[in-house]
Amino acid sequence: MDINLPDVLAEMTAAFDRYEVALVTNDVAVLDELFWNSPHTLRYGATENLYGFDAIRDFRASRPSTGLARTLNHTVITTYGRDFATANTEFQRNGSDKLGRQSQTWMRTPKGWRVVSAHVSLMS
Amino acid sequence: MDINLPDVLAEMTAAFDRYEVALVTNDVAVLDELFWNSPHTLRYGATENLYGFDAIRDFRASRPSTGLARTLNHTVITTYGRDFATANTEFQRNGSDKLGRQSQTWMRTPKGWRVVSAHVSLMS
Repeated sequence: MDINLPDVLAEMTAAFDRYEVALVTNDVAVLDELFWNSPHTLRYGATENLYGFDAIRDFRASRPSTGLARTLNHTVITTYGRDFATANTEFQRNGSDKLGRQSQTWMRTPKGWRVVSAHVSLMS
Repeated sequence: MDINLPDVLAEMTAAFDRYEVALVTNDVAVLDELFWNSPHTLRYGATENLYGFDAIRDFRASRPSTGLARTLNHTVITTYGRDFATANTEFQRNGSDKLGRQSQTWMRTPKGWRVVSAHVSLMS
């Protein structure tokens, strides 16, 4: 398995960056686009466990759209072959001293890279 | 991408179950075996962020070996093609009312299935 092929890593990093901009600007259309539209898709959030794309989309639609700014630290993106990737990062919300962690697993689909599984938490 | 090919899903489920038994019995040798031996491997735990296989192994070696029993709920294992998988589960430690979540991304290697990224947290 080829790890971090430069062109794949560049693609994946662009997708990750696009997701981050969409998250902090609450661009729900892009957030929805970048999650795999499948009942298998899953997202554990800081305070909720969401099973299936529809539950994730409903959550996005009802999410408060303020206070989303954050700083990322120790971002690690790794690609495996040409079709799979993991993206992990620590984050801190502006004005909060809590340390957050965000993990995503991405898959290449005919429509582009999509998140198939995500886990967001605050460190205990 | 073929999702949940029965033979791949069976293999991956067996690896997941083996990990779970090793975790609750603190079988450190098996836990070490099942994480990818790479500097790219990463594990966010409830109270620590570990970067690289060596940091994960050092953590296992110094971890308390009691109070590990737990119950799993809503386990979702998904395989993508023949070489990649995600395994997500909620868990509750015996005697605790906190809800835990465990996410793993697995890759097939020449030595077998290995965890390349993991995230464990307690719901806020």
